[in-house]
Amino acid sequence: MGLFSSPAKVYKPAADVDLGPGSDEFYISPNVKAPRVAGLLVKIFVWILEMPIVGQMVLYILKKDNLINKLVSDADIPEPPLFTATHSWEDIPEQNVMLTKPDLSAAERVQEAVGCLPARLEATLAADAPSSGLKRWTIRDFYDAYSSGETTPVQVATRFLAAVKESSGPGLNMAFFISCDPEDVMRQAEESTLRYQRGAPLSALDGVLVAVKDEIDCAPYPTTGGTRWLGAARRCEADAACVAQLRACGAVLGGKANMHELGAGTSGINPHHGSTRNPYNATKIAGGSSSGSAAVVCAGLCPVALGVDGGGSVRMPAALCGVVGFKPTAGRLSSAGVLPLNWTVGMPGILAGTVEDALIAYSAIVDQSQPSYLRPELNLPQLKSSLSINNIKLAKYAKWFNDSAEDIRSCCDKALKTLQAHYGWQTVDVTIPEIEEMRLAHYVTIGSECTASLAKYLDKLKRSEIGWDARVALSVYGSFSSRAYLNSQRLRNRQMYFHKEIFKAADVIVSPMTGVTAYTLQDDAFDTGELDYINGAALVRYSIAGNFLGLPTITVKVGYDKGGLPIGLQFIGRPWSEATLLHIAFAMQASGDTTICSEACAKGYKKPAVFYDLLKKE
Amino acid sequence: MGLFSSPAKVYKPAADVDLGPGSDEFYISPNVKAPRVAGLLVKIFVWILEMPIVGQMVLYILKKDNLINKLVSDADIPEPPLFTATHSWEDIPEQNVMLTKPDLSAAERVQEAVGCLPARLEATLAADAPSSGLKRWTIRDFYDAYSSGETTPVQVATRFLAAVKESSGPGLNMAFFISCDPEDVMRQAEESTLRYQRGAPLSALDGVLVAVKDEIDCAPYPTTGGTRWLGAARRCEADAACVAQLRACGAVLGGKANMHELGAGTSGINPHHGSTRNPYNATKIAGGSSSGSAAVVCAGLCPVALGVDGGGSVRMPAALCGVVGFKPTAGRLSSAGVLPLNWTVGMPGILAGTVEDALIAYSAIVDQSQPSYLRPELNLPQLKSSLSINNIKLAKYAKWFNDSAEDIRSCCDKALKTLQAHYGWQTVDVTIPEIEEMRLAHYVTIGSECTASLAKYLDKLKRSEIGWDARVALSVYGSFSSRAYLNSQRLRNRQMYFHKEIFKAADVIVSPMTGVTAYTLQDDAFDTGELDYINGAALVRYSIAGNFLGLPTITVKVGYDKGGLPIGLQFIGRPWSEATLLHIAFAMQASGDTTICSEACAKGYKKPAVFYDLLKKE
Repeated sequence: MGLFSSPAKVYKPAADVDLGPGSDEFYISPNVKAPRVAGLLVKIFVWILEMPIVGQMVLYILKKDNLINKLVSDADIPEPPLFTATHSWEDIPEQNVMLTKPDLSAAERVQEAVGCLPARLEATLAADAPSSGLKRWTIRDFYDAYSSGETTPVQVATRFLAAVKESSGPGLNMAFFISCDPEDVMRQAEESTLRYQRGAPLSALDGVLVAVKDEIDCAPYPTTGGTRWLGAARRCEADAACVAQLRACGAVLGGKANMHELGAGTSGINPHHGSTRNPYNATKIAGGSSSGSAAVVCAGLCPVALGVDGGGSVRMPAALCGVVGFKPTAGRLSSAGVLPLNWTVGMPGILAGTVEDALIAYSAIVDQSQPSYLRPELNLPQLKSSLSINNIKLAKYAKWFNDSAEDIRSCCDKALKTLQAHYGWQTVDVTIPEIEEMRLAHYVTIGSECTASLAKYLDKLKRSEIGWDARVALSVYGSFSSRAYLNSQRLRNRQMYFHKEIFKAADVIVSPMTGVTAYTLQDDAFDTGELDYINGAALVRYSIAGNFLGLPTITVKVGYDKGGLPIGLQFIGRPWSEATLLHIAFAMQASGDTTICSEACAKGYKKPAVFYDLLKKE
Repeated sequence: MGLFSSPAKVYKPAADVDLGPGSDEFYISPNVKAPRVAGLLVKIFVWILEMPIVGQMVLYILKKDNLINKLVSDADIPEPPLFTATHSWEDIPEQNVMLTKPDLSAAERVQEAVGCLPARLEATLAADAPSSGLKRWTIRDFYDAYSSGETTPVQVATRFLAAVKESSGPGLNMAFFISCDPEDVMRQAEESTLRYQRGAPLSALDGVLVAVKDEIDCAPYPTTGGTRWLGAARRCEADAACVAQLRACGAVLGGKANMHELGAGTSGINPHHGSTRNPYNATKIAGGSSSGSAAVVCAGLCPVALGVDGGGSVRMPAALCGVVGFKPTAGRLSSAGVLPLNWTVGMPGILAGTVEDALIAYSAIVDQSQPSYLRPELNLPQLKSSLSINNIKLAKYAKWFNDSAEDIRSCCDKALKTLQAHYGWQTVDVTIPEIEEMRLAHYVTIGSECTASLAKYLDKLKRSEIGWDARVALSVYGSFSSRAYLNSQRLRNRQMYFHKEIFKAADVIVSPMTGVTAYTLQDDAFDTGELDYINGAALVRYSIAGNFLGLPTITVKVGYDKGGLPIGLQFIGRPWSEATLLHIAFAMQASGDTTICSEACAKGYKKPAVFYDLLKKE
């Protein structure tokens, strides 16, 4: 391993790269050279990294071995930088969409979204879906139960708080929430109950529980970002924009969901607030960084939760927990009131039990703060008129698609075949070049931006306040040169070009959501976190385009591995094509999974081991 | 001098900063702690900087002492980054403008511009301007002389080549050009002469000599960027966009003007191609980095030259050589075919003997390559209808305005008073905060971008190919962290806000162009360059907003210091307000200087010591 043995990559002009299926572009599977480390070894590693000169040398070798220097920092890249992932508004033609009026309130938009939905899936897919058994309740289920007087928001909130208590207890120790204020939850539920009693609910979301990742401001809670210090260092003064919109719809904000510390990891292992466990199997990780948001939806505690997605942080845990994860186009949702852990890759996202609930939540929280002539139009998918959508072309890059665990590959392949059979959609074989290069460029970008944004706090902080694995991340994050940052933005420019070219031939790109399913939470990781860059790289393998290029993406569950752990399929869309993406995901979900756990299980769909039925008859 | 003694600056939110005249914002005059260094000491300094660990420590101390760490890298800045200086197109209301048709050719636009001009200034300012004596010939003078047959482009080109030869010879040693191919010049002149003989010149620019900074591609020359290696490492394959437009107008491209190596300095001292001397006084610098472009215009060799302005590099040498320097709004001119030494601060600019010639050249080279519905409209100032323009408000920040040499301060003050007296314009006192902070943020930005853009060449290059002072610059440029770069962009965001607020109260910001006039070329600097950060900081003191914020700016000569060296006044305008800016500059020039050297000298305006009269009667 010579210190200077690896010559930097010389990229050819993006326009000269062959994006066809027969391209000779080399697919690099993440070349992560680092064994899993946890416990005392993490601490020793941190001590070394934080030594003045030795630490820098170790970091240099680490980056070199992981090809950051060769593929990014020292590379020869013809393109100029592209600094952001924002897209100018284009009114792209979409099938089966309803254009909403420009100046609707959040509650009015929710009602528009509900108006786009078909009758219950039981009816729509009557042949496949006998009605009975335990349900994964949807927003409409809650709304109907409240409206009919079958139950009240207060009763549901009471069950919710009992479930939170039970799941947090030593028996289950699920670590779903960082904070949950029973009084605040009950107060909201009482107000909602009164509205239903008066016959005046604010929207279909009235009385519906929503959890909020602890990276998003939500009164009356501090926003910890998964740390034990940031909540005090930075005051949460008001609801974030998306939280305020949910509140205006009557949603009951159920507390601050757990997360990986500072979003700087993908496992959801958190030494300060507990490591979120996967409701399907409590010995497994929930994924991260929006670990709690995914797990609470999975466990039936709320039909919808908010997360933040800077590098797959909504979609990865969604896939690992078998729920829907939806990250719209960059700029479609406001980031006001979200911790500014980065500026150019992250944004809020939605976790939901079903695609229909993702659609309703999305309609509530789209950013409409700009004057109407400046902001993108809001199309909603007309699911009522047709479950399907015609002539969809799905781009598939086989080498990438197949670079996942055997069960994931075969399950996602089967899902694609189902779509072809059910809806006649076509698969288009393509090559998406430089995916590993993009992952590294994104890593340099998010790391650099996190360093700059947090510096004002970190410079004053005792290192011991920070978790050990986060200290490793922060050491690496802080080590990037401006040249590495600028080269990363040049790779962003190339990838934007590649993806736009691919979208000339296909409507969406399809891939697995993760390269591995939920892996085991090991005992040695609870206090120190763990460094598991091999699993980490496999988790984020399919996530990056959504963030680095600001493209809308959604994941839905399409099956389980042999251990019974969920597998997610991902669709990546053109900028501003959320309506098409939701329509595709809805069709995918309707063709396989349904909203109904019990008979879905009969068809091979499984109920989580930890699951709460908040609408049960008592 | 404790290594950690200087706490980082905590910036308050931009919106809380008082921009009024009574603001308590502290004005920091550049706190440059570095003696002038040249000769052997520069070499020793380079050897130290290029040592692996010691060099980094020295750089750390250097940056710390010059407040880069305190004010930029380690600072606490509330705003997110703003990565570029580009402005969305706004159709701002401007007085006395003519809107050109959208799809005119370069030659047609030149004719439109000529149509906006008043009759000769002798007529317009008849009372002040008796006609006689030596002239600083304008484009119209050349066109008239060619059209009337009084002279021909061939005759003028012959005189031009003789002057280039003489000025390059050991007697004068002016180092105006890096390359000038007599055959190519004569061929162009012959073609032009034939066009005039046929009565079909392409435009008013036909047969007019234009020099091009050696940072801009212009066939048949290599583009050296002032180095001795880049011309071979990077092929010049075609004319840059702005050169191609000038060529399409019939201009005779007279050669590649000298420049500071890689644009990495402001003196114009160049160890490879000779140090450009100031035509007013050949013992003085011409300024840089567009040193040759300014000097050839000053010396009468061509009425117009192209430069590139990344940190005042057009306007500073223009001011030092007593010519007009004009940098339009970022994006108004194409940077295609300009060496990509940076991406977010530089663009081509115009050097001209008179404002009317700057207007003509500008009309020729505006970027019209985008579809017409996407690109800014092109307004030209209607100078014909009125020399003046009403109700102009000039913002002046007194502490900054006055932070210049005594002669500059008093001369610029007098110029302002002249404008008030002649045209009734008002001065508005304002505070422009954080000017030194902006200079440092710009320095981090241009240095980082230069490093990333040149790396592919520099990584393969022997260091000894590079001049000593450029090696110092490259060492500093390459030392910036991604955090420093990102914080610089956050300061860009603040400054954009401050300037937009100031433009609510005023049409233009007025300042001296430089803090010092041309200083002495010292013998010890010819081979190694010199490190003179005190003079360097004084030179760029007023330049940065034009680059970092992409604002249009222009400088015109308003007088001389006691040593007879020119002094420039600067006007900085709103985005896309070039027509207003040119109108103001025209009025300024008309009120004091005229295009006529001889009687201008009688009024206190001086003829350069080295001056060629290309239209003289033989």
